[in-house]
Order: sequence, then C-alpha cells, then structure tokens
Amino acid sequence: MKIIPCGSVQTIVAPDAYFTGRVLQTPIIEKEAPARLRATMVQFEPGARTAWHTHPFGQTLFVVSGAGRAQSWGEPVFEIKAGDVVSFAPGEKHWHGAGQSTVMAHIAMQEALDGKAADWLEKVTDEQYGG
Amino acid sequence: MKIIPCGSVQTIVAPDAYFTGRVLQTPIIEKEAPARLRATMVQFEPGARTAWHTHPFGQTLFVVSGAGRAQSWGEPVFEIKAGDVVSFAPGEKHWHGAGQSTVMAHIAMQEALDGKAADWLEKVTDEQYGG
Repeated sequence: MKIIPCGSVQTIVAPDAYFTGRVLQTPIIEKEAPARLRATMVQFEPGARTAWHTHPFGQTLFVVSGAGRAQSWGEPVFEIKAGDVVSFAPGEKHWHGAGQSTVMAHIAMQEALDGKAADWLEKVTDEQYGG
Repeated sequence: MKIIPCGSVQTIVAPDAYFTGRVLQTPIIEKEAPARLRATMVQFEPGARTAWHTHPFGQTLFVVSGAGRAQSWGEPVFEIKAGDVVSFAPGEKHWHGAGQSTVMAHIAMQEALDGKAADWLEKVTDEQYGG
C-alpha cells in the first residue's frame, strides 16, 4: 500500500503544445504494468481546453466542479457540469475544456498502452470551441 | 462520447456480504473491453469498511472527503484523509473504510480482468479495524 498524502504532489501548468489557455494538472496516479490506469486532476480556466486527442483505451472524465464543454469529432459541442461523467471510446477523437466564462475541473482517467496514454493532434480553433 | 448526467445514476447500499456497516455506492464508469477501468464513488459511515479483498490489477483510491483508514495484510492500519491517494498493487490483500467516528468518501478506481474487478475475502474484525 502506498499513500500519497494530499499536498505532496506538485501541480504543473499543462504544456502549451497540447492545450490552449491556462490549465493546471495535478497527478493522481500512474500505475505500473501490468496495470494501466493513469489519473490526473485537471483545472481549466475560462476558455481553456485540450487539443484534439485520442486515447488507446478511451477516457473517462469525472467533472468535479464548474461547467465546461466537450466534443467528439463530427458531433456537436456539449456542455458538461459538476458531477457529470463523460466517457470516450478507444481511439475516439475529442477535446474537453472550460466554459467561455466558467472554470471546469475534472478527474481524467485513462489507460496506457505501451506506456502511452494519449495521442495528441491539432489544437481546437476558436471557431470549433465556440461550437 | 457518452455523457452520464449528475443525478441520473442510482446510489445503492453496498452488499452486506462484502462490507461491514453502512456503505453507499454510486457507479461512475464501467468501461467495455478492451478497456478495463471501473470507478465508483463510495461513502462509508463511521465504523464502516470493506471486507478484505484483492484486485487483479490493483486499485487506486482518491479520498474525496472525510478521514478513514486502510490496511494491507501484515501492515499497520493507516489513517487516510481528504485529498490523499492510496494505491494497492495487483493481488495485494487489503481493506479500507471510515474512521471510528468520521465519515470517509473515496473514488475507487480498478481494472477488471475477464469482467471481474475484485476478489472478496473474509470480513475485517473489530479487532483488526481498531488496529
């Protein structure tokens, strides 16, 4: 059993290469093989969002607070709110982020394949973000 | 993309066969193969705890609120608090629950093997729970 005490893990600013706007990431867990789980607390400031991306085994978001947006390629932009769960299938191209004037925080849960849990694609344009 | 809106999933009382005391479970996600992730919000009333159990790919607990306890077989009982992350290895025999006079809620994340995410063992005695 390993206990990672609250406050002992550094929060980082998410890399500009894969995000638009200000996004803060606090790692929760990165399990060792044969387990696959990786989980991170992610906080998006208003207007901030991920780039388009996919996950080898899909992804689950548990929205902890605030209201934001998410979209899968070819589908409309949907609003997501505190307490909602958002599930993406393996390989499903998508993005998620804050609302235009509201923060959004979620726990992101995904599974790594050969040590890689996401494949990053192009950024979400303002037009795409606006829906 | 599937959105499961907050409030749309029924909370259940955890089965007496695998838990001691009053425990409430609200499912978050159960991914379909080839993904493995299963996550549940679990709320333990004071004194309540799981039975001893193992998970094929281990387990991660994110403590959302309150203060509780966790123990691995052969190790001391440790206190766990809001914001802590607790990680168990594949096959590690353990239990987790509330404090003697405090509630504890956590998100439990585990991975299923052949559709099974836990193997349940004997209950945690009052002597074991007391540490």
